[in-house]
Amino acid sequence: MLLSRDQAHYLFGVMRLGVGDSLALFNGSDGEWRAQVAAAGRRDGLLKAQERTRPQQDPPDLWLLFAPIKKARTDFVVEKAAEMGAARILPVQTAFTNSERIRRDRLQAHAIEAAEQCGGTFVPEVAELRKLDAVLADWPAGRQLIFCDETTVGARQTLRDAPSAQGWAILIGPEGGFSATERDRLLALPFVSRISLGPRILRADTAAVAAMTLWQSLLGDW
Amino acid sequence: MLLSRDQAHYLFGVMRLGVGDSLALFNGSDGEWRAQVAAAGRRDGLLKAQERTRPQQDPPDLWLLFAPIKKARTDFVVEKAAEMGAARILPVQTAFTNSERIRRDRLQAHAIEAAEQCGGTFVPEVAELRKLDAVLADWPAGRQLIFCDETTVGARQTLRDAPSAQGWAILIGPEGGFSATERDRLLALPFVSRISLGPRILRADTAAVAAMTLWQSLLGDW
Repeated sequence: MLLSRDQAHYLFGVMRLGVGDSLALFNGSDGEWRAQVAAAGRRDGLLKAQERTRPQQDPPDLWLLFAPIKKARTDFVVEKAAEMGAARILPVQTAFTNSERIRRDRLQAHAIEAAEQCGGTFVPEVAELRKLDAVLADWPAGRQLIFCDETTVGARQTLRDAPSAQGWAILIGPEGGFSATERDRLLALPFVSRISLGPRILRADTAAVAAMTLWQSLLGDW
Repeated sequence: MLLSRDQAHYLFGVMRLGVGDSLALFNGSDGEWRAQVAAAGRRDGLLKAQERTRPQQDPPDLWLLFAPIKKARTDFVVEKAAEMGAARILPVQTAFTNSERIRRDRLQAHAIEAAEQCGGTFVPEVAELRKLDAVLADWPAGRQLIFCDETTVGARQTLRDAPSAQGWAILIGPEGGFSATERDRLLALPFVSRISLGPRILRADTAAVAAMTLWQSLLGDW
């Protein structure tokens, strides 16, 4: 594997690795490998994969849709989604979303870092920001959407009686929740069910972890 | 209510409130009140409570025990615990804990801020840092402890078959988990049950939210 300038700087400049040193590698699809530094330059380098140390472990087919909020908390949502085993992360614009755009590359880098930190072998893709309406308009057939509604109670009930599905998704609202129009539209869609995350108002990153926990423990790989 | 210097600075200097303005107040035990500014100085001030706008809402009897880690992530654990409805937060030193002390006052301030942000009326107390061994040695009779063990599977099972208890607690390990000695000791205790948080390694603040979600949805107030 040829290293990019950033990778070479990190491994040889920051981590002080040299030729012959070992490290763990993953590319998101072939598991974890032990690799050895074969060449180390200031701006490039070469790693040789030697032995697979862990099989690829893909998460279940769960997407996380969320409305980007303040920058730092948007980073947290992506980080938490990667840790909790989201297969795909989709930022969506809602009526009360306060960002017009996102730095997709930066969010993708956060997802990679979270996977590295947590010893994962999979990195969820962060999609481009789209309007919620547009995402709902071409929703994939067979995929169920769980809508975390601050105005409901009865979380377990809904997920336990869950219909069979070809994939799932969770939708977390922005600060301020959803507009009445959005809520009505969501509840009228045949692939949408709603859950409650308890009587306390949760920040978006906390709500993402809580909703994914409920899903993972009942329908996922926990 | 007489204001402290910090409170007066925040309300009159930062938020620019003046005599006659209204705000929401909570003290952790009497619900939420609408109050009016009766006097506003640079270093002090007076608020008059006028009408209760929400009843006091205490969380269920759940403690969160966690091993303090890097400063920023310790703050997150406290913030998340307050959001998720912990009644008490107990920092504990374990074999692999990397902090010798905590700033209890700063952590308590984070818990207050989280309650404010989330519209809560209750603030969990942050206890002094103690050794896990000492906390276990004088464990309160009747309280069950849930140990989040990275080496187990079968989360739901354990909590669904949960014994009746006079209060609960959740124990989240540090980065690096628990030592073999600690794990053996925990599992030998009659009030301890263990749960799994899935096949991915979670950071401490994520694990805290996930464990509290499982508990709240099965045994708490969700």
